[in-house]
Amino acid sequence: MQRLERQLEFILEIDRLKNILRRTVITDGSRQENSAEHSWHLAMMALLLSEHANAEVDVTHVLKMLLVHDIVEIDAGDTFCYDAEANLDKEEREQRAADRIFGLLPEDQTTQLRALWDEFEARQTMDARFANAIDRIQPVLQNLATGGHSWHLHSVTKAQVLERNSPIGDGSASIWSVISQRIEGAFARGLGSVDEE
Amino acid sequence: MQRLERQLEFILEIDRLKNILRRTVITDGSRQENSAEHSWHLAMMALLLSEHANAEVDVTHVLKMLLVHDIVEIDAGDTFCYDAEANLDKEEREQRAADRIFGLLPEDQTTQLRALWDEFEARQTMDARFANAIDRIQPVLQNLATGGHSWHLHSVTKAQVLERNSPIGDGSASIWSVISQRIEGAFARGLGSVDEE
Repeated sequence: MQRLERQLEFILEIDRLKNILRRTVITDGSRQENSAEHSWHLAMMALLLSEHANAEVDVTHVLKMLLVHDIVEIDAGDTFCYDAEANLDKEEREQRAADRIFGLLPEDQTTQLRALWDEFEARQTMDARFANAIDRIQPVLQNLATGGHSWHLHSVTKAQVLERNSPIGDGSASIWSVISQRIEGAFARGLGSVDEE
Repeated sequence: MQRLERQLEFILEIDRLKNILRRTVITDGSRQENSAEHSWHLAMMALLLSEHANAEVDVTHVLKMLLVHDIVEIDAGDTFCYDAEANLDKEEREQRAADRIFGLLPEDQTTQLRALWDEFEARQTMDARFANAIDRIQPVLQNLATGGHSWHLHSVTKAQVLERNSPIGDGSASIWSVISQRIEGAFARGLGSVDEE
């Protein structure tokens, strides 16, 4: 039973992702979102939006990447995408985290999860580009629904939002077209009035 | 863009699952778990534990069922499994919720998600039995890790826990063998000392 014991230990360990808070708030604005519920939301999006990808994607593979992609934050924390300084050592922190956390599993599954995470981070395959697009679309939607909550709070400009999120177009040009128009519209209205749209 | 608009509306709507609280607390005991992060945790378990299913399962299909299975709680609430009265009208409440929420999507996706949920609830296929097993294993693990927190709080007996969770064996006899032994051991030690194991 050594194999099942290791799997159950890993499953208990990743419960800690529920305590990793992101900068984005949930849609009712009541609290910050955590990385576990965020990952569920992304998986649902992948299930529903894959028809809009720029080229055919393997939905199952995208789903798996999205389920796994934030687990390293248990050790490395969530790094705010507009925080240049924190992003300097992000990769090193996350590599150490991946070694430790995925290493709890039986070796074949360590390799499997590490490969999913590496592929997501490298953004070279179509599946990874689409998964990364989903990971950016979701916080934009939540920000648009809350009057640009985290953009306001951290004084992020429209140009920064558009630049940061333009890789959405590498995964889905059609979704990026709709989302970038919504961003333009929201900033044109001063963000605060987005809720009344 | 009518189709994408409907999909994005649904995606925003299901954000509300992050506010549906379960009786189980997260592993550090700090707060109740919500159904969105719970669903992520189950999806990760399906990804890792499918080799223990009693017969071969379609992991992708199990994953999809688990991602979708709690969405009806947005309208119907989480029904505590040991609350006999609340369980009387659970099915009716959840059917209405499924009609409304899945109905936000384009028709083909409404049908797809409804079929996943119906299959999960009916527990007739091997995939559904395994998905239901995962859905029961996770709260047992969290309870064992927190000294039987929700069992204690709601005065649930060992016999009730074993009866409620015995369908785990329909999905995976080998996991149920390990889990039922852990339940026996935890109650034998009076639950409170489980953390020190």
